[in-house]
Amino acid sequence: MNRDLYLGIDTGGTAMKYALTDGQGAALFEGEVPTLPGDPIASLQGLRAAVVPLTGGDDLPRLAAVGLACAGIVNPESGHLGRSPNLPGWENSPLGQHMQSVFGDLPCALANDVNGALYGEFRHGAGRGCENLIMIALGTGVGGGVIVSNQLLLGAHRGAGEIGHMQLDAGGPECTCGGRGCLEAYAGSVGILRAARANDGAAVAQLVQERGAALTTADLATLANSGDADAAEIFATVGRRLGQAVGNLVNVLDPDKVIIGGGVARAGELILGPCREVVPQLVLAAEAKNVPVVPAQLGNLAASMGAASLAQEKETSG
Amino acid sequence: MNRDLYLGIDTGGTAMKYALTDGQGAALFEGEVPTLPGDPIASLQGLRAAVVPLTGGDDLPRLAAVGLACAGIVNPESGHLGRSPNLPGWENSPLGQHMQSVFGDLPCALANDVNGALYGEFRHGAGRGCENLIMIALGTGVGGGVIVSNQLLLGAHRGAGEIGHMQLDAGGPECTCGGRGCLEAYAGSVGILRAARANDGAAVAQLVQERGAALTTADLATLANSGDADAAEIFATVGRRLGQAVGNLVNVLDPDKVIIGGGVARAGELILGPCREVVPQLVLAAEAKNVPVVPAQLGNLAASMGAASLAQEKETSG
Repeated sequence: MNRDLYLGIDTGGTAMKYALTDGQGAALFEGEVPTLPGDPIASLQGLRAAVVPLTGGDDLPRLAAVGLACAGIVNPESGHLGRSPNLPGWENSPLGQHMQSVFGDLPCALANDVNGALYGEFRHGAGRGCENLIMIALGTGVGGGVIVSNQLLLGAHRGAGEIGHMQLDAGGPECTCGGRGCLEAYAGSVGILRAARANDGAAVAQLVQERGAALTTADLATLANSGDADAAEIFATVGRRLGQAVGNLVNVLDPDKVIIGGGVARAGELILGPCREVVPQLVLAAEAKNVPVVPAQLGNLAASMGAASLAQEKETSG
Repeated sequence: MNRDLYLGIDTGGTAMKYALTDGQGAALFEGEVPTLPGDPIASLQGLRAAVVPLTGGDDLPRLAAVGLACAGIVNPESGHLGRSPNLPGWENSPLGQHMQSVFGDLPCALANDVNGALYGEFRHGAGRGCENLIMIALGTGVGGGVIVSNQLLLGAHRGAGEIGHMQLDAGGPECTCGGRGCLEAYAGSVGILRAARANDGAAVAQLVQERGAALTTADLATLANSGDADAAEIFATVGRRLGQAVGNLVNVLDPDKVIIGGGVARAGELILGPCREVVPQLVLAAEAKNVPVVPAQLGNLAASMGAASLAQEKETSG
């Protein structure tokens, strides 16, 4: 039997989502198992047990390689996972070694979560055919990743891609990082919900009161899409700040495309429309002004698909 | 006789500076000839005539390759020079073809001016031994360049590296690009002299009046170094804004080192000191916080040395 499957794992604080792909971009099987926050090896063993029936038996005869994406400072070469606040029992561990101990001598690849999602979009989603890409993931926080000449940009200390902490206004709102005016302070859900709670609009105030601590950016987007101008303006402000960050990045990197992902990005054109108005005002090179700023396509599957692609390439490159 | 010399040309609006290097980083000969703004071919012929006696005769027997750096949007692959406001008769021309027509079948390399200077510092100056570098050149305007994994970052439309137009404050001072609050509006000499003319300090006001239209950032630096706090604060503001830009870039790119060059950077620690205070406050990854921010080392020779290195690598790579 040919080893024709690639396993990609997207590790979050509560669940490990996985995809088994055929190497052509199709996810043949998907599923998830719990993340055991204190025990990466037992977590990986649980995942291995779940995929055994899908891969032909206990020695995984159909599996060719394994990739894993997770939040934190990841060194793909050494396999070390550094700071990773959402995975307290995993951080500062030799995660690559743990993968080898569970998956034997299969090639194992490692990436941080946004780079995994970016790589998925690059190979199979919104970034297909591009050589130079930027991805910004709008979630509770704001993450980022960059591809230059078909390679993930990692940086000298594996610290590249922290796009969320680009300071857009030194006098801006406080950020969770301790700074002020970072992109994340405007465009992460924490910042957006703070802006909503400070908003004067009658319908926004009513929503804030009704939903209380359960308020989400999806609630706000529903209100904005129902025609409430105040709610729409909250997202427009997000979009303009995102546009400032994208314009700055395009001036530095001149990518083929910019991909906006993450849960907050489900607000769609409420954010992307105002963003696209700002970008060409800031970009200097005429040819780069009209860089496409597009939504991600793979949704929740992006990081596991990307991890599977990284695994496949690790296998192919030997 | 071995072909053991590499010619690097740094083309400015009035002069073409050149360096003949031995391929080991030593400039054996240096000189300059006038730039003929309306005629790139005649300019290059003038330069060729100047180097003939240095390269063993009319068929340039010792010359192995030629590199040229100039301001503007340069496509190193196609040899096309796009927008280049300082070289009106050169812009939108097939500059690579012009080089071949003057230098025959010698390998010819092309780069924009800041990339040329960055490459010179990378191979022979402040960036030796680094794999990932950022250079910011503070002059009348503010230019930039990036090296990722030992390669100049060019971008999808050869528009990368426009670091001077990173918007640091959407409500900031006007920039020559038409925008507001770009790094260039704070840290280019035009912006610095504007800040000096608006300054309330007695000694600064006296200097502004005495020097009139001839005022330079060097005049201001002399005043600051003599102990005038107002003049020093003008440079400290420049340094803090430069620090904001550097912090943002380090968050995205995580380089080994950041090199600050250009004429304005001769103010040295007046700018670099306050810059270095801001950077670690903005950088998220602990390992990247203490990225060295250092002055350029090669001065006026950087771009010609870099062009010669690019020529050498073009020859070596076939």
